[in-house]
Amino acid sequence: MCELLGMDCNTPTDIVFSFTGLARRGGATGPHADGWGLAFFDGPAARVFIDPQPCALSPLAAFLREHPIKTLQSVAHIRRKTRGRVRLANTHPFVRELWGRHWVFAHNGTVKGAKTLPLRGRFTPVGQTDSEHAFCWLLENIAHKFKTPPADGGELSGSIAKWAGKIAEHGTFNFLMGDGSTLYARCDTRLWHIVRKAPFSTASLEDEDVTVDFSAVTTPRDRVAIVATRPLTKDERWERGQPATMWVFHKGALVDTLASGAPSEKALRILASERGAPVSDR
Amino acid sequence: MCELLGMDCNTPTDIVFSFTGLARRGGATGPHADGWGLAFFDGPAARVFIDPQPCALSPLAAFLREHPIKTLQSVAHIRRKTRGRVRLANTHPFVRELWGRHWVFAHNGTVKGAKTLPLRGRFTPVGQTDSEHAFCWLLENIAHKFKTPPADGGELSGSIAKWAGKIAEHGTFNFLMGDGSTLYARCDTRLWHIVRKAPFSTASLEDEDVTVDFSAVTTPRDRVAIVATRPLTKDERWERGQPATMWVFHKGALVDTLASGAPSEKALRILASERGAPVSDR
Repeated sequence: MCELLGMDCNTPTDIVFSFTGLARRGGATGPHADGWGLAFFDGPAARVFIDPQPCALSPLAAFLREHPIKTLQSVAHIRRKTRGRVRLANTHPFVRELWGRHWVFAHNGTVKGAKTLPLRGRFTPVGQTDSEHAFCWLLENIAHKFKTPPADGGELSGSIAKWAGKIAEHGTFNFLMGDGSTLYARCDTRLWHIVRKAPFSTASLEDEDVTVDFSAVTTPRDRVAIVATRPLTKDERWERGQPATMWVFHKGALVDTLASGAPSEKALRILASERGAPVSDR
Repeated sequence: MCELLGMDCNTPTDIVFSFTGLARRGGATGPHADGWGLAFFDGPAARVFIDPQPCALSPLAAFLREHPIKTLQSVAHIRRKTRGRVRLANTHPFVRELWGRHWVFAHNGTVKGAKTLPLRGRFTPVGQTDSEHAFCWLLENIAHKFKTPPADGGELSGSIAKWAGKIAEHGTFNFLMGDGSTLYARCDTRLWHIVRKAPFSTASLEDEDVTVDFSAVTTPRDRVAIVATRPLTKDERWERGQPATMWVFHKGALVDTLASGAPSEKALRILASERGAPVSDR
């Protein structure tokens, strides 16, 4: 299992605060010590930093915390390997180009059987993970159905949610996928989000003694959506995703919540074990 | 114009020594201050660091010099923009996946008219450069002719050299392209290479007061090919490329030198101006 972190904004924002919390889980406060990756978009192009070292100990991760990069969209992942050994080719986020844009993808869960979904040869995994295979299959479906970006973004989101549901039949499929403009976030077992907007307040990390006063670093029109496997702060109201739904973010806003297949067996087990307990911390 | 640096080896090697010399040309001893990039392969996967800042002043470039990454193949580029503004999407090296491997590409020169070469939609430029268009056109030709990697690597090299010659009809086309296993290096106006192997000796950078004793950091069977727009050291015997030829490197050795189209007008002008002067420093 792994942890995901995504950010989508209406104004260039750095992800240092959230990434600091996530990084602690990569080998320090969490067991996710098998590599990490962080993608930043600049328009249609992504820079992707990946490192097979534990995030909490990685000099490159420290460098990125010390040299903030502002972006409208970012996707991060820390890995605890289930399939595929620790090597660069197996490190999320994965990236491909479609329609002259980069697309990045990071997955939490295991969909081993998804490797039986046939690929046409346009997108081929470089590594051994089921995750990258699933990403390639999603992109091949998108490219096959839509020769060019559809004018109706809702049609694309709906198709992605449907195909993601197909992949999810093979296991647990929480993922983040973004093209720098729209961020797709599918919840299977666990995914949370928060939209920070005016009036801004302070927030404190769950995993490290760091507090930030967002009102001091924002303007009233700023809007930033953060998606994560587990809430990263302890004093904000995060919204929990429902199993088998996909959130669609654009310019820092949640613009759609779509059904995406059926809840996985694991999600149903988690829900059952929590029966009687609140499913949201709101 | 820009400067290129490539490395292909038979044993994992860091590129810090050569990159240190190249980096100085990115805004310090040279005018190539419009961004830079450095790709490292780990098997079939590449990590690509790109930065729109001048290389000589870039904290990320300094980080990479201080944290050497060993690799069998690396491609670097520092940019002085001729086409396309300074932005991440226009920063070399470019990367795409073909046959489940990453391919990286960096270009020196201008082939503006190559944008008229038609693309089929499988590989589409993310930025505005003629360079990325040329790369996409090369990959589309490769993917169209070879559905899978040909058993005969020579057939692939020959095809690449031929298609590169077509692109070169549109201007000046020095490039490095690698898939982590084979490095293709086409010379139009300027490209040099050296193969370092036993017995190793010392070398001193042209652009900075740095000397390395390779015999202290190698084993007798190591072999490292370095390709660069201009020789990076002042006390080694670099071999100059002939206009309209393409070198093919594999495991640190020059395995082929192929004809690739016709010399460009610019290459002919340079040759004419040098008539009477040595064309190699051997």
